[in-house]
Amino acid sequence: MANIIGILGGDLRSVYLANALTRSFEVHVFYLEGRQPFVPQVHLEGGDQSLLARCPAVVLPVPVCQRGLWLNAPLWKGEVPLSVCLEAFPAGTRVFGGGITGVIRTMAGKGKLELIELLDQEELTVRNALPTAEGALEIAMRETDRTIRGSKCLVIGYGRIGRLLCGMLRALGAEVTAACRSGEELVWAEAEGCQPLPLEELKTAAQWVDIVFNTAPAQVVTGEFIREMRLDGIIIDLASLPGGTDFEAARIRGIKTIHGLGLPGKCAPRTAGEAIARTVEQLLNKGQPR
Amino acid sequence: MANIIGILGGDLRSVYLANALTRSFEVHVFYLEGRQPFVPQVHLEGGDQSLLARCPAVVLPVPVCQRGLWLNAPLWKGEVPLSVCLEAFPAGTRVFGGGITGVIRTMAGKGKLELIELLDQEELTVRNALPTAEGALEIAMRETDRTIRGSKCLVIGYGRIGRLLCGMLRALGAEVTAACRSGEELVWAEAEGCQPLPLEELKTAAQWVDIVFNTAPAQVVTGEFIREMRLDGIIIDLASLPGGTDFEAARIRGIKTIHGLGLPGKCAPRTAGEAIARTVEQLLNKGQPR
Amino acid sequence: MANIIGILGGDLRSVYLANALTRSFEVHVFYLEGRQPFVPQVHLEGGDQSLLARCPAVVLPVPVCQRGLWLNAPLWKGEVPLSVCLEAFPAGTRVFGGGITGVIRTMAGKGKLELIELLDQEELTVRNALPTAEGALEIAMRETDRTIRGSKCLVIGYGRIGRLLCGMLRALGAEVTAACRSGEELVWAEAEGCQPLPLEELKTAAQWVDIVFNTAPAQVVTGEFIREMRLDGIIIDLASLPGGTDFEAARIRGIKTIHGLGLPGKCAPRTAGEAIARTVEQLLNKGQPR
Amino acid sequence: MANIIGILGGDLRSVYLANALTRSFEVHVFYLEGRQPFVPQVHLEGGDQSLLARCPAVVLPVPVCQRGLWLNAPLWKGEVPLSVCLEAFPAGTRVFGGGITGVIRTMAGKGKLELIELLDQEELTVRNALPTAEGALEIAMRETDRTIRGSKCLVIGYGRIGRLLCGMLRALGAEVTAACRSGEELVWAEAEGCQPLPLEELKTAAQWVDIVFNTAPAQVVTGEFIREMRLDGIIIDLASLPGGTDFEAARIRGIKTIHGLGLPGKCAPRTAGEAIARTVEQLLNKGQPR
Repeated sequence: MANIIGILGGDLRSVYLANALTRSFEVHVFYLEGRQPFVPQVHLEGGDQSLLARCPAVVLPVPVCQRGLWLNAPLWKGEVPLSVCLEAFPAGTRVFGGGITGVIRTMAGKGKLELIELLDQEELTVRNALPTAEGALEIAMRETDRTIRGSKCLVIGYGRIGRLLCGMLRALGAEVTAACRSGEELVWAEAEGCQPLPLEELKTAAQWVDIVFNTAPAQVVTGEFIREMRLDGIIIDLASLPGGTDFEAARIRGIKTIHGLGLPGKCAPRTAGEAIARTVEQLLNKGQPR
Repeated sequence: MANIIGILGGDLRSVYLANALTRSFEVHVFYLEGRQPFVPQVHLEGGDQSLLARCPAVVLPVPVCQRGLWLNAPLWKGEVPLSVCLEAFPAGTRVFGGGITGVIRTMAGKGKLELIELLDQEELTVRNALPTAEGALEIAMRETDRTIRGSKCLVIGYGRIGRLLCGMLRALGAEVTAACRSGEELVWAEAEGCQPLPLEELKTAAQWVDIVFNTAPAQVVTGEFIREMRLDGIIIDLASLPGGTDFEAARIRGIKTIHGLGLPGKCAPRTAGEAIARTVEQLLNKGQPR
Repeated sequence: MANIIGILGGDLRSVYLANALTRSFEVHVFYLEGRQPFVPQVHLEGGDQSLLARCPAVVLPVPVCQRGLWLNAPLWKGEVPLSVCLEAFPAGTRVFGGGITGVIRTMAGKGKLELIELLDQEELTVRNALPTAEGALEIAMRETDRTIRGSKCLVIGYGRIGRLLCGMLRALGAEVTAACRSGEELVWAEAEGCQPLPLEELKTAAQWVDIVFNTAPAQVVTGEFIREMRLDGIIIDLASLPGGTDFEAARIRGIKTIHGLGLPGKCAPRTAGEAIARTVEQLLNKGQPR
Repeated sequence: MANIIGILGGDLRSVYLANALTRSFEVHVFYLEGRQPFVPQVHLEGGDQSLLARCPAVVLPVPVCQRGLWLNAPLWKGEVPLSVCLEAFPAGTRVFGGGITGVIRTMAGKGKLELIELLDQEELTVRNALPTAEGALEIAMRETDRTIRGSKCLVIGYGRIGRLLCGMLRALGAEVTAACRSGEELVWAEAEGCQPLPLEELKTAAQWVDIVFNTAPAQVVTGEFIREMRLDGIIIDLASLPGGTDFEAARIRGIKTIHGLGLPGKCAPRTAGEAIARTVEQLLNKGQPR
């Protein structure tokens, strides 16, 4: 019985998560419609929760909820209160999910369920950096009227995503400047072939930049910066809400902005779903010996 | 007066062509609407042909015509017979354009106009290979649900486009197999880091391939090949009409196909327009000493 | 007087360090022979220490000493006890150097001199990672009888050097496996296009590897590993003394090993000297306002 | 008997050629000493030619001769006149070799032997381009005191070797300018990420270049060019004798030059030997049906 797992709701990532988990689990999916590209081994339970009682582990979506406390289930016809799911889990169930808030923890009942926050899993964060960076590249290709090769790109932030993105842009022949705060990041960006730019000198880039990518969780693409930009420049902001761009200033000047949120799920749901599968497998295996 | 040039019709490439030519010409545009992103130096003539009499050189679109013998002018509200343009050019005008057929040559009158086929210009072909390859990559990113990194790609043909495309895919971390006919191309593909595959063994690739890119002007992606493919594979055909894919066989099996035609104009009109500008400039300069 | 700086001993890096520092300092060099490629602005003092009294800052070599407590001065004909230098520095002198041991600190006198350990400077460490990785690549090219392209490389450790080295090897078309301890490093290595290998499974690589690069400061290339290797494999160990290889086991089996120590100084002294210059400049500028 | 092959003389490439051919032939080697790294399947005949009578195909070295008409056999203690070998081959023997001159053809006797020039085999030329380019990179790494990353490289000629070399240099982070004669090559070099430079403007590069690589079979690195170079620049000439550099002008100015000849054999004999093996196999298989 230990190798039964349930998957509830979610977008296409959940479909590929389910497919991937069949290699080591008996997989049952709930609140996901059957016409999605499931492999035959996946058991489709639709809205029938009865089998949840037999699942020692379940995976909720990333993010778990939408609009308040409804299960995030865009591939299901109806609406499902999260509480209905939580109540169906037997005590001791290991519940994976992304964005587990205090409210959800309270609803889950003290100690009854073992809640595991997927967004805290370092390896999953790294695994998501790649589809995020590729998604940003895809947006840049789609939204600009020039080739990436020869484009003057500015990437703000040299963390996981910034670094992978810089690597891709250079590989395709863009001129890449990496703006970063710390001295070590600057040296590192330079060692990897980017033009380094201390963040405090960011404004000097406004006049030449074709494509701005922001990965920093701070208001860095300011109105002042935007007012210096060419009108055919474009801003792709990858920072979580509220983003790091003065979107209003950009709207006023007529500069195109794209706020790229949840890119792994949108641009590469298969890769993203398989990344969740690997993380869930590792966490469950690690727990085994207990 | 020698440095006046006229541009007639065309898509966004014509706009960027016009902008680029202002660096060395007095540019007048016809059959292009004014709200496109023209630089201020471009003279907008709309449908008023009177100034054509003063242009020693004009650039028609690539391709020159659409639906028969109408000027290809998607950014103009009305329809313009090509004959109306040709008649407005004074004798001796140098007329650039793409896809100049025998019919058009006849209409132009024997020897009256100097017709220069842009598609025959070797350098322009090379310059267009880059936006074509990037356009193919953009399609692949958009139409698949996985990352390019780790994807099993098959590129058929190792000419200009195939070669650039293979380089981009490898740079992004795909596993790239290049299928080519000649022994020298195979060795070259291998030297540049691809897995070489003799074209006659193409069928062996059907079972593992995630993304097929065809650049060969021949029916290579046959029904037989398609019947061996996984259902989640995808075919991106870059060959000119009619393409190299058995589209009907793909439709029947439910395998996604995209026939990517005219990618430079669609995916990177600025780069493509500037490429035309450089070619026109070179050809006009070469002619100078006459 | 604040912008006088002295440089004592060292290898070719000291020469390029001196050249680079002339852009912002009056540079005097000691215990370095004049026929080295100095720019004309550098003042050659030879063994005459009298000018040291006027230098508010001096740079000792990396490492400071050789064979006990003699100044590391391979480009000087004589031998210089470190104590002789230290005594020549006036109180308050800022003394940069690499590998400043407790013994040296004691010799310097309590609080009399401000000793600044270059090897503790994070940015310099990053700056040295690049010439180290290139040096390792150079060794691999020189010592093997095959091309890097197509070689099966194993890089142990995915820290700064390992990561840059993996990137270079992949860029040249090698098949690269990165062996690392932490799960996050493994995921990261995979995201950057390497085959990830958990360190505990290292032994499985012995049978197929062409070139082993070790960057981990631990005994990882064990006798057991070496006994499984093919005889034409090669081991390049970049870890500091005593290295991470069972050199004796390799010697017995006749497997070639190279212990690559101090590669920045050996393979790219100019780059390495300029890196020290930048670090010294930054540290002195930071100190300015005091 | 058809699958017996003889290998006579040559450098380390012959050793690896012999090893590689054992996968499809019974291999006998002559004029190669036994302590080389042969696999056990290779039959060592030393200077005993008797078995040559049974070999329907033999491979002579690249180049066949040294100092006149002696067999090129640096791994053999004695000197062997080529005529002695040729006479030992029975009529109809297929004789592969590199640099088969008219004199050799005459010695071989009219029609008696089938002489096959390896240097005329297009695929082998391509296969040799890679180890040549890597060899040039190795020389650059060894002979300069800076890292390739950040170096200003000038590659003259954008044929096979120039192109691969440009790709490697860019991949390692150098700034690469490609000087070429034809307009198409210039556009192509630009499309692949190099700075294009028309050959007639070559002189402008002299002042900034760190490393010159010449692949063009013409006197392009002239005394005039060399007199403009910085003294710490370096010239690596890959063109066949007499090379494309004014070596005397460089010597007078004290600028370092390296004439890199026969790099595949020197830098990657295993890769080069295997390349010859593949070519010989293909040519013999093609001949089979006769």
